[in-house]
Amino acid sequence: MTKLVAVDVHDVRFPTSVGLHGSDAMNPDPDYSAAYVVLRTSDGPDGHGFAFTIGRGNEVQCAAIEALAPALVGRDVEEMCADLGRVYHELVDDSQFRWLGPEKGLMHMAIGAVVNAVWDLAGKRAGKPVWKLLSDMTPEQLVDLVDWRYLSDALTRAEALDLLREAEPGRAAREEHLRERGLAAYTTTPGWLGYDDETVARLSKEAVDEGFRQIKLKVGRDVEDDRRRLAIARASVGADIRVAVDANQIWDVGSAVAWIDRLREFDLWWVEEPTSPDDILGHAAIRQAIAPVKVATGEHAQNRIVVKQLLQARAIDVLQLDAARVGGVNENVAILLLAAKFGVPVCPHAGGVGLCELVQHLAMFDEVAVSGHHPDRVVEYVDHLHEHFVDPVRLVGGAYAAPTAPGMSAELRPETLAHYRFPDGPAWAVSARA
Amino acid sequence: MTKLVAVDVHDVRFPTSVGLHGSDAMNPDPDYSAAYVVLRTSDGPDGHGFAFTIGRGNEVQCAAIEALAPALVGRDVEEMCADLGRVYHELVDDSQFRWLGPEKGLMHMAIGAVVNAVWDLAGKRAGKPVWKLLSDMTPEQLVDLVDWRYLSDALTRAEALDLLREAEPGRAAREEHLRERGLAAYTTTPGWLGYDDETVARLSKEAVDEGFRQIKLKVGRDVEDDRRRLAIARASVGADIRVAVDANQIWDVGSAVAWIDRLREFDLWWVEEPTSPDDILGHAAIRQAIAPVKVATGEHAQNRIVVKQLLQARAIDVLQLDAARVGGVNENVAILLLAAKFGVPVCPHAGGVGLCELVQHLAMFDEVAVSGHHPDRVVEYVDHLHEHFVDPVRLVGGAYAAPTAPGMSAELRPETLAHYRFPDGPAWAVSARA
Repeated sequence: MTKLVAVDVHDVRFPTSVGLHGSDAMNPDPDYSAAYVVLRTSDGPDGHGFAFTIGRGNEVQCAAIEALAPALVGRDVEEMCADLGRVYHELVDDSQFRWLGPEKGLMHMAIGAVVNAVWDLAGKRAGKPVWKLLSDMTPEQLVDLVDWRYLSDALTRAEALDLLREAEPGRAAREEHLRERGLAAYTTTPGWLGYDDETVARLSKEAVDEGFRQIKLKVGRDVEDDRRRLAIARASVGADIRVAVDANQIWDVGSAVAWIDRLREFDLWWVEEPTSPDDILGHAAIRQAIAPVKVATGEHAQNRIVVKQLLQARAIDVLQLDAARVGGVNENVAILLLAAKFGVPVCPHAGGVGLCELVQHLAMFDEVAVSGHHPDRVVEYVDHLHEHFVDPVRLVGGAYAAPTAPGMSAELRPETLAHYRFPDGPAWAVSARA
Repeated sequence: MTKLVAVDVHDVRFPTSVGLHGSDAMNPDPDYSAAYVVLRTSDGPDGHGFAFTIGRGNEVQCAAIEALAPALVGRDVEEMCADLGRVYHELVDDSQFRWLGPEKGLMHMAIGAVVNAVWDLAGKRAGKPVWKLLSDMTPEQLVDLVDWRYLSDALTRAEALDLLREAEPGRAAREEHLRERGLAAYTTTPGWLGYDDETVARLSKEAVDEGFRQIKLKVGRDVEDDRRRLAIARASVGADIRVAVDANQIWDVGSAVAWIDRLREFDLWWVEEPTSPDDILGHAAIRQAIAPVKVATGEHAQNRIVVKQLLQARAIDVLQLDAARVGGVNENVAILLLAAKFGVPVCPHAGGVGLCELVQHLAMFDEVAVSGHHPDRVVEYVDHLHEHFVDPVRLVGGAYAAPTAPGMSAELRPETLAHYRFPDGPAWAVSARA
């Protein structure tokens, strides 16, 4: 019997604030960080997962993951990987942990890290990347992954089954297409708020040269700055490339509408996170006011219940799920099913530490087995920190190439773990920031 | 100069699960706990506050509070108490901590614990209970306490000022009335799901004898049990006493409506937490379907943005704010102002550890200086764990007596801190549960 013998938790932080990579209207100086978990097994591969944070408090995120360890250590790994709903269901149903959310914030992100690590482990044991592991499951197996509580007024288990069965005959062809062509990406690399105009122009041009058909700029600190930077970016990419903007939650409803009005002439593809991620009705009001400019959100949607309402209220045109904020792969399967039911394309959030690595698996599963091919599906790409992963994403001509290595691409390199360990790794010891 | 010299954090847990006190449909065996914080000052009184949890994970809640300590230690206490918005604004604006919510879950509850402790300290230094400290502030000072971000589509700062100014002339008379008569309470004591029928009957009768005009029963595990227990309770209290029920988030929208239909004949006053606290649209749908039975929720509303939407969507008849889930007194001032604008009575959630002690101050401030007297305002009361507080609540004839001791009634007795310290206090050392 293979046993889960230990749950190791690592506080890993990268001093990204030094170069203002990742700077936006709400987050001026993030230090991209991971509360990283290793599910150590008695034999065979280990499972890897993480929660992504932006610095302070990553130690609390680590403590939240450690609190889940007693529920995991000693488990039969085969049994766990044979029923990929069980760990998720047990952890979200723990009434005492539930009080700390419920299903939101630090505790829920801890559950997400552990659940993703279980999927990584299951993929490795099955010899499949997680997108393929998911895409090979039957509709019945897939709906069993989901916690259906609170969803039935928008989507029932039976409707989800129908939806998955309808997609089944096309799976093989879409998988072949995916392996050949990859999945379209867009890039946020040119758009950080801390970059000067020359950098915006150069990186925008480079993005088009690399094959991207969409770029994204951060906005929301100063409207004249935004207009100048958008003019530069639009001039650099030409009229055919989609330009989206991201306000990172900076506005109230009224100020969002007024501000976006000042940016309309640059032909915006979508406006991302115009206001609080909790404000479903606010997003709906903004969407009505700014159409045909699209509203996109979801990276901070705390769980499937908020996503359900964003869809019910017709508050969004684009759903940006995040691989590491909700309850892991299982809750994201629910979110993909909800989006498919409402016909809203899922364009996952990525960047940070390893979010590109994780989220590609979910988007590819969506393409193969859930909503099928959608011309507007693009997956975010940011060119930071991939070198720290054992199996980094591979971009080819502006598209994510389908990963072939088993697992969820979540494993950090041992040198990285040693070097960026907070607060005592060499990366922090030599810095005044520690 | 008085300095804040240390932030002490204590993990305090009570083995309440042994007697099934606090048992409900979602929480079968809570161990009521506090992540308790002491703001230690160089001279004069200390400040006390806490987050309430139900057991496992309380150590993570403590770690979250500890993460805030560097932002507090060394501060000038006089300055801090002279500007009671500042600590709250700084903590919720910290972009790196914000990522862990934003403004929800463990990290936000940690901010709430600290902010409440600052208010406790300010009350002690001013020689006033916090309800009185608040009620003596000018409308201008009160609106400065609030974080107005994300609220302007429902309530502006100017509207809030008008509202507070309108209430100003009546403050003195309402304060006098409050000191004479207290504030009406209702009791949940008879209603825990783990109690047998005899206990329900006896405690329901006792509640009426003690002067309560409303009781509340937990429901949602088995509809026939609920019907039997409601019949017993109704027979015990008679037709004139209000009987509310609390489902603690157990249902989906459809099952809530169907279940409540089976309980209608017992003349329910309100149904509390019929579904997920995140489901604004779900509550609105349930409210429409079950009228004239009222919908009550709010104890798990994560922040003012969710409360705003519950009011905008006409999803609730009764708002049950919680003193220790959101960002402390400051965010609850925003919540009281929102409720007043929409004309919804605030009937605060209490129970747990010390929630009665904290929340009475908010309800009394609401009565004196915000919404004024409301015939349907009742504050929850549960008769557990008060003996552990230095200044416990005092109930007289079914009403909360106005506290007179300075501060927010948040201080635990030193013997309690020593005895219930987890995991090494005597209360846990002698138990097999540790």
